[in-house]
Amino acid sequence: MSAFWSEMVHRTEPYVPGEQLNEANILKLNTNENPYPPSPKVVDAITNELKRKLHLYPSPTVDGLREEIARYNFLQKENVFVGNGSDEVLAFSFMAFFEPGKKIRFPEITYSFYPVYCKLFNIPYELIPVQRDFSLQVEGFFQSEGGVIFPNPNAPTSIYLSIEAIEEIIKNNSNQVVIIDEAYIDFASESAVSLINTYENLLIVQTTSKSRSLAGLRVGYALGHSDLVEGLTRIKDSFNSYTLNRLAIAGATAAFQDTNYFMETTQKVIHTREWVTSELKLLGFYVLPSQANFLFVSHYKVVAEDLYKELKMNKILVRHFNKKPIQNYLRITIGKEKDMKLFIAQLKTILQSYN
Amino acid sequence: MSAFWSEMVHRTEPYVPGEQLNEANILKLNTNENPYPPSPKVVDAITNELKRKLHLYPSPTVDGLREEIARYNFLQKENVFVGNGSDEVLAFSFMAFFEPGKKIRFPEITYSFYPVYCKLFNIPYELIPVQRDFSLQVEGFFQSEGGVIFPNPNAPTSIYLSIEAIEEIIKNNSNQVVIIDEAYIDFASESAVSLINTYENLLIVQTTSKSRSLAGLRVGYALGHSDLVEGLTRIKDSFNSYTLNRLAIAGATAAFQDTNYFMETTQKVIHTREWVTSELKLLGFYVLPSQANFLFVSHYKVVAEDLYKELKMNKILVRHFNKKPIQNYLRITIGKEKDMKLFIAQLKTILQSYN
Repeated sequence: MSAFWSEMVHRTEPYVPGEQLNEANILKLNTNENPYPPSPKVVDAITNELKRKLHLYPSPTVDGLREEIARYNFLQKENVFVGNGSDEVLAFSFMAFFEPGKKIRFPEITYSFYPVYCKLFNIPYELIPVQRDFSLQVEGFFQSEGGVIFPNPNAPTSIYLSIEAIEEIIKNNSNQVVIIDEAYIDFASESAVSLINTYENLLIVQTTSKSRSLAGLRVGYALGHSDLVEGLTRIKDSFNSYTLNRLAIAGATAAFQDTNYFMETTQKVIHTREWVTSELKLLGFYVLPSQANFLFVSHYKVVAEDLYKELKMNKILVRHFNKKPIQNYLRITIGKEKDMKLFIAQLKTILQSYN
Repeated sequence: MSAFWSEMVHRTEPYVPGEQLNEANILKLNTNENPYPPSPKVVDAITNELKRKLHLYPSPTVDGLREEIARYNFLQKENVFVGNGSDEVLAFSFMAFFEPGKKIRFPEITYSFYPVYCKLFNIPYELIPVQRDFSLQVEGFFQSEGGVIFPNPNAPTSIYLSIEAIEEIIKNNSNQVVIIDEAYIDFASESAVSLINTYENLLIVQTTSKSRSLAGLRVGYALGHSDLVEGLTRIKDSFNSYTLNRLAIAGATAAFQDTNYFMETTQKVIHTREWVTSELKLLGFYVLPSQANFLFVSHYKVVAEDLYKELKMNKILVRHFNKKPIQNYLRITIGKEKDMKLFIAQLKTILQSYN
């Protein structure tokens, strides 16, 4: 607390990221990172860039990377905005499309950064309750006053919403921007990106942190009508001309050029997810149907916080959100197959002690 | 223009960075980059980090780099805030310490990003006229309503303000934050960092883009009382948990560990600056007394815009600001000695055609 803080600082309620323990031998299943390293082509591209012009500013418009992302998504460069991680892209989106005095809507259970942005930028919000099975209540998002945002698949529930349902939400908010936060979409059945050419009020936010194994490089992006991209660009150019450094641009560009590696590692994660799901069910867990690289689970007998603590004592870190109505759930990132076998084995040992 | 833009987008007047031409063989003296590559130890550190954990998030608190910066400045980690370039650090500072409804003050001639932040965050401002020799009018900054910001040395004038004068400004704004933007301080006589332990309302912003040859890596930082750093951290943690990627953290940390290389390249730039200054004076230029890695000059006969265009035709890029009262000045970045010899030779040829 300081007499020099602005009102903005006073009203913040900062986001608390998942624990980043520095201990060796920790099995980290708590922040939804990809267990596989990035494509070797990413490492090569960064190594080459490193030898070039680190003393010169990067491109302020990042055309090359934007073209690569556009190509992958059958869009134009003008439909692509890039930023320093999808959290920055989301922050700019709240600034560009949401407004103090106009209530936006997001699900009661969702990515916990959304209310943090609302506090920062003084944007009022309504929480739309989820259904008993944690799926989204589609009609609850119709005719919003100030806009809509939700992740698909939702976090931390891992549940996917169909493109048809998303289209209904977009149609029923024709004067407001609907932001679909697709951080986990590559582990799911289908992106809403195909709707971009039809709906001018749709903004899709994606990231290289999950399916492209680049959480450490901080590159996120938004896809939408060129007017929305221009709005984001005006905010960014009033905030920081160069949000991506030379190495991040080179690495992310290479990641979008190596589709095979990305497909292969994504399929491995999905495969492991299905195996872990069936194992957990055998151990008495209720497992929400996941289309992400994590599971959201609850045990029929042992409370989640106890399991979280026991796992941590055994050097396995998962995420527990100590708030209603999800306090009895754990969010478990899908790791490599061998790590998940270890996880299941440890879990069996822990559960035995409760019998 | 779009119906979906927020009021914030509508009121922006985005910053326009210096031209980044992609043509080969351009001598780029327009964006104040360091002509020398970063320390080889920076490249090594990034190469090592690249082999490690790019698929995992970076540290959200960046303790290692903050400790290194603190050590160099005889401060504590709690006095250091790091961000994605000093432009991001400045943006967070405007959010954390300045306020809509309270007029801040900056010089009439200064870094042109300050009014851009003011538009974005709706912060009113007063321009304090500079003196006839372009030096700052110290008393003009006393008893500000909402705070003070200026670069030292000032941009684009290159003129340095003494620590004694800065201390007077800080003392005469005891209820407001005074931000000294020291992007170019390593080319000048003395930083105001020695005042931090005395004045709780002083924030100093620095960057690795200039003296550390890392414009392409985007690492800036602020130094100040721990309460100010906490205010910045609250804003950052409400905006983007991880603003520096793993490679930027590794590279900047190594840069602060190699003081010798930094001292050597900085001295070379200063040496070349003094040589270019004397040559320009011989050619009929008025050269403001520079303590930066650039010069701000005006010719007694040839107008600046013509010179800018002629130089550009000869593949030399300098910066011309087409606005009063500096429309007859050019800002020239100090390059390597051999490049500046070429520059002076070209300039001689151009000027001959005006005789």
